[in-house]
Amino acid sequence: MNYQAPYKDMQLLVAQAYQQQGLAGVESLDGFDPELANAVMEEAAKFAAGVIAPLNQVGDVQGCRFQDGNVITPDGWRDAYKQFAESGWIGLALPEEFGGQGLPKYIAQPVNEMWLSANLAFVMFQALAQGGSEILLNFAKESIQSRYLPKIVSGEWTVAMALTEPNAGSDLGALNTKAIPQADGTYKIKGQKIYITYGDHDLTDNIAHLVLARTPDAPAGSRGISLFIVPKHRVADDGVLGEFNDIRCTGIEHKMGLHGSPTCSISYGDQDGCIGELVGELNQGLMAMFVLMNEARLSCGLQGVALGELGYQCALEYAQERIQGTNSQGEKVAIVEHADVKRMLLEMRSETFALRALGYQIAAQIDATEAADNQEETNQSKKDRVALLTPIFKAFSTERANVMAGQVIQVFGGMGFVEETGVAQIMRDARVTTIYEGTTGIQARDLMFRKVRGDQGKALTELLAEITQLVQPFESDDVFASMVKETHQVLTKVASLLDSHLLNPDADHDGLLAVSVPFLDAMGILSCTWQIFNVLAYQQAQETVDESYMQNINALAAIYGAYRLPSAMAALKVVENAGLGLGKYKF
Amino acid sequence: MNYQAPYKDMQLLVAQAYQQQGLAGVESLDGFDPELANAVMEEAAKFAAGVIAPLNQVGDVQGCRFQDGNVITPDGWRDAYKQFAESGWIGLALPEEFGGQGLPKYIAQPVNEMWLSANLAFVMFQALAQGGSEILLNFAKESIQSRYLPKIVSGEWTVAMALTEPNAGSDLGALNTKAIPQADGTYKIKGQKIYITYGDHDLTDNIAHLVLARTPDAPAGSRGISLFIVPKHRVADDGVLGEFNDIRCTGIEHKMGLHGSPTCSISYGDQDGCIGELVGELNQGLMAMFVLMNEARLSCGLQGVALGELGYQCALEYAQERIQGTNSQGEKVAIVEHADVKRMLLEMRSETFALRALGYQIAAQIDATEAADNQEETNQSKKDRVALLTPIFKAFSTERANVMAGQVIQVFGGMGFVEETGVAQIMRDARVTTIYEGTTGIQARDLMFRKVRGDQGKALTELLAEITQLVQPFESDDVFASMVKETHQVLTKVASLLDSHLLNPDADHDGLLAVSVPFLDAMGILSCTWQIFNVLAYQQAQETVDESYMQNINALAAIYGAYRLPSAMAALKVVENAGLGLGKYKF
Repeated sequence: MNYQAPYKDMQLLVAQAYQQQGLAGVESLDGFDPELANAVMEEAAKFAAGVIAPLNQVGDVQGCRFQDGNVITPDGWRDAYKQFAESGWIGLALPEEFGGQGLPKYIAQPVNEMWLSANLAFVMFQALAQGGSEILLNFAKESIQSRYLPKIVSGEWTVAMALTEPNAGSDLGALNTKAIPQADGTYKIKGQKIYITYGDHDLTDNIAHLVLARTPDAPAGSRGISLFIVPKHRVADDGVLGEFNDIRCTGIEHKMGLHGSPTCSISYGDQDGCIGELVGELNQGLMAMFVLMNEARLSCGLQGVALGELGYQCALEYAQERIQGTNSQGEKVAIVEHADVKRMLLEMRSETFALRALGYQIAAQIDATEAADNQEETNQSKKDRVALLTPIFKAFSTERANVMAGQVIQVFGGMGFVEETGVAQIMRDARVTTIYEGTTGIQARDLMFRKVRGDQGKALTELLAEITQLVQPFESDDVFASMVKETHQVLTKVASLLDSHLLNPDADHDGLLAVSVPFLDAMGILSCTWQIFNVLAYQQAQETVDESYMQNINALAAIYGAYRLPSAMAALKVVENAGLGLGKYKF
Repeated sequence: MNYQAPYKDMQLLVAQAYQQQGLAGVESLDGFDPELANAVMEEAAKFAAGVIAPLNQVGDVQGCRFQDGNVITPDGWRDAYKQFAESGWIGLALPEEFGGQGLPKYIAQPVNEMWLSANLAFVMFQALAQGGSEILLNFAKESIQSRYLPKIVSGEWTVAMALTEPNAGSDLGALNTKAIPQADGTYKIKGQKIYITYGDHDLTDNIAHLVLARTPDAPAGSRGISLFIVPKHRVADDGVLGEFNDIRCTGIEHKMGLHGSPTCSISYGDQDGCIGELVGELNQGLMAMFVLMNEARLSCGLQGVALGELGYQCALEYAQERIQGTNSQGEKVAIVEHADVKRMLLEMRSETFALRALGYQIAAQIDATEAADNQEETNQSKKDRVALLTPIFKAFSTERANVMAGQVIQVFGGMGFVEETGVAQIMRDARVTTIYEGTTGIQARDLMFRKVRGDQGKALTELLAEITQLVQPFESDDVFASMVKETHQVLTKVASLLDSHLLNPDADHDGLLAVSVPFLDAMGILSCTWQIFNVLAYQQAQETVDESYMQNINALAAIYGAYRLPSAMAALKVVENAGLGLGKYKF
């Protein structure tokens, strides 16, 4: 599929996030300004369109193969990986100390979006390298860091995350893989894991597995889980590759989508020869994994943006070419002229734009908190904001990407159902994004119980106040007055539900849980609306603007308000009905 | 996949439709009562579960193959077809005169639902036989009827509908296939058609193609299209099979779903030897096709119900077996115990139930109009009701089936994304149901412009009045009072939009068209709500009820009101914003 980075939107939103999160004043980001961001984006856009997008459909059609215990990636994968690593893209946002380029997240975000649009299945190793490195940076002892990080950052080795077991999915506390302490301080690892992305492949000589396991005397449940680094081939003290570490791929999944990304079942220590090293403290494995999970959830949210963008581009191109039906003057027209098709396209366009804005703001906010650890109070509030937005961005963005992928097929009509067109792949690929890294239900529970109830609604209330203030100047705007009015209704309703339901100590737990997804849905729409007003406000404050582009952004804002915002009140009405009827049904 | 007909719901809704549409008093339906319906359903349920459901996944995995110009169906298909035909299921609702069983539609409806749940890809020949026969009964001359109908009704031959061409999809007026009149009154057919379901296969000796084509001097556009019956092998006057009629399958589509149903490209008269006979009047082909299309749209709506049911059954079974996470007492539980999962399951259950009720009422209403052609006025009003509900049922039911199929995968989590589980197939199969037989956009346009504006809102206003009256007794009900209140809001809003937008002669055409799908969406939810109150009212009027079953139905009604009804007002709010912003965006 053709993909061209939406460069103009990206530039605008990167510059805006940089300014609004106050990154200009941050000393450690000196030089990492939007000008650099633009240069990096330009290079990445070429690489995305030229090297990895052309392999997207190849990967879907061929898929990975499992032969004689080895995983073979699709044609072209190995060469593209080599180019990707050698161009330094893996270490883009990793420390210079280990060979990375040390770019802030706000610059890495649009670049990552490009990879994810161009070829989601291919590029999954990238988020694994990023997240795995952050775990090692935060938790591993220096001897592990020095042996592993340079190899991971350069792309010589990849990272795999081994969490899930057949009976431990959303509930990791149930996992059974064993780690037996050895006299030399290492551990013998023994167990079966499933759903390991790039758990085995033919791209590199070695793979660093981060494995969750239990030591023999560990407490039951999630408090007895430790994290280990377990290489496919052992790594000597001097970093030289040693013998095979008894890690065997036993099969790959035959999935609905993401055919090019191997999803492996792995057996650790089948011959009793699998050695790992502890990362972080004993029994604190889940804490380390949470670092990764937050990272992965934000990356997953960005996948929603990326797939929405890819789908929109495909649908627009087709709608502009496909002649069918007539306009009101009886002339044959391309289907983009039909109002219903136009609405579908522009709903996608505006929603993707708003979600992208949200994702870029979150990235810049993380940069801001990481740079500003001396201002503790402001920082905590910013961290809480990121924590509040993470489940919303992850789940809402991916849920909407699924809806959009369906709309893309709808624009294509019968051609969309035929695999050769390529858009069916977008829908099949998108389908897992609401599942992995925590299902939508898990995100919604995190949002409602941990991020709202657990915080006594502080972060949410601050957000509501900020949005209220933001939309105020648009109250008397010709175009946006009614959108502001509706936004106020939503803000008021959320605030009143905080009292009556969300923070109510007497509220029924299961009743709330039942409507946690609708609540997240409402918060997603509100967040998009917030971002849209945010862009409008930012643009109005600029001295020079591109008039025709600005007119389009204004139109997209109005479109979001007209066609998507009304669903927020419906979702909140559902929240109000928390639990109704569910207890009375007997299966 | 396992499938068991939801017998209890079917019995209830069949009996209810029979009573409410006054079929008990119809002389021509004497003997065709719910007791007979139950006996037929019982047999069909066995056949569905025992013979065709087991082939559903086989068909998906193997798909049809195209070899040496022939289409080969999956293993087991031929034998199952033979059993299906020999058991008389094809002629179930076709006239006894031609070998059918002459059952009314209200009885055929649950039976068809079972086939569609059990194996949608397999059973597509059934709707083609039904629709094709109705065309021949209504439009073909006797000599065609006598040669073709007995063969079609018995299943000896199948029917294929050849409408679409590469440049004529939603806009059939653009089609180019030629029909050249011959001296003997027949026509030489020449052209290429695509997307022909069961256009070729290995199940029967002959296939009767109904082909839309143009005679040389036909007017341009949709007024110059005629319908022809064109057999794969010619049929002599005595019905004996003659020579090959120059109909060649040139390929089958590689589709996202429905792998077991061959979607053929067909070349007619490549060697100039394809002979057809005119069906109906010259240039009136689309009129005949509309008979079929209405039939096909109702069948397609039923596919939505059927896939919703199948998905629900799979999801429930998995949710009851899969142990993951703990309840509030800290005990490990099956995921059906988690409130969020329970809500998803019961939303599916209640929505499928309401959509089924709608589909059964429409079928019974058609029986009523067909039987009562002497009472012209009432009859017209009933026909208009069916015409109003047809696009709603077709589009809304299939759109919701797609949403539900996504939810089914969500309940399965990672297992849902893995093909072996089987539920990915439901989603892939469902994807085309919002496209074929007229996309959701086409249905929405039909609803808004033909069925509402074209009728000056008469049929819709009658429906609103009926619902208003129906819900009135529940106004002070403990459980349903707030649902009634919300239903009233929806009714009032629709009525006010009729004045301000839908019937407003000054309303902007494109603005309305842009929100036609949201309008259809709102009408779909309102129709489901109507059906739910309808069932409640019917049940309350019964002398004996199954208390525990009735309690579940009550719970489902409340669940629909709590979690789905709120979306209606949001969709109507979008309708109110008709066209906003769309004209201001420049692609």
